[in-house]
Amino acid sequence: MVTKLSDTDREQNLGPLLSAQGGGWSLVDGRDAIKKTFRFADFNQAFAFMTSVALKAEKMDHHPEWFNVYNRVEITLSTHDCQGLSTRDIELATHIEQAAQKSSC
Amino acid sequence: MVTKLSDTDREQNLGPLLSAQGGGWSLVDGRDAIKKTFRFADFNQAFAFMTSVALKAEKMDHHPEWFNVYNRVEITLSTHDCQGLSTRDIELATHIEQAAQKSSC
Repeated sequence: MVTKLSDTDREQNLGPLLSAQGGGWSLVDGRDAIKKTFRFADFNQAFAFMTSVALKAEKMDHHPEWFNVYNRVEITLSTHDCQGLSTRDIELATHIEQAAQKSSC
Repeated sequence: MVTKLSDTDREQNLGPLLSAQGGGWSLVDGRDAIKKTFRFADFNQAFAFMTSVALKAEKMDHHPEWFNVYNRVEITLSTHDCQGLSTRDIELATHIEQAAQKSSC
């Protein structure tokens, strides 16, 4: 069963993602979710990034909400099963940060 | 130079896409663009479809605006260079229809 992040999880694991050093994710208004916009050199790099995220998401059976146009990818993460942020979102966001760094080389 | 669809193009090529038989695309309010929502069995099929569309889009250098969550893909097409619908949108929409049929097998 998936449960929402505890206060300790939020402090220790979500906090860093929300910091500028950790990637600059932000909380979504009116919803227990996080979001971030990524920009790449072009569509080729943006879709390479999306493919990496898709493979990880499918492996985790935990999928993003995302919008793309050309080089921009806007991602929102939350966990449907618990109607809020869970450790799955932390894990996927961490992968997304790594994938973004690789795709923007 | 890319130009907006002529009235003849709209009748002959856009019309069929807007019909139920041609895929059921619809015009976007307040903008010269078309949109359609696709639903697949799961994320795997949805992303397979997106990958096919991405390869075609990159080949055409004409990219969609699209949102995905799990098995749902919402696509909007318009041509930035002419601020409206062009033959590129007709060509990409036609490919998208074919890709959707293949991905939902």
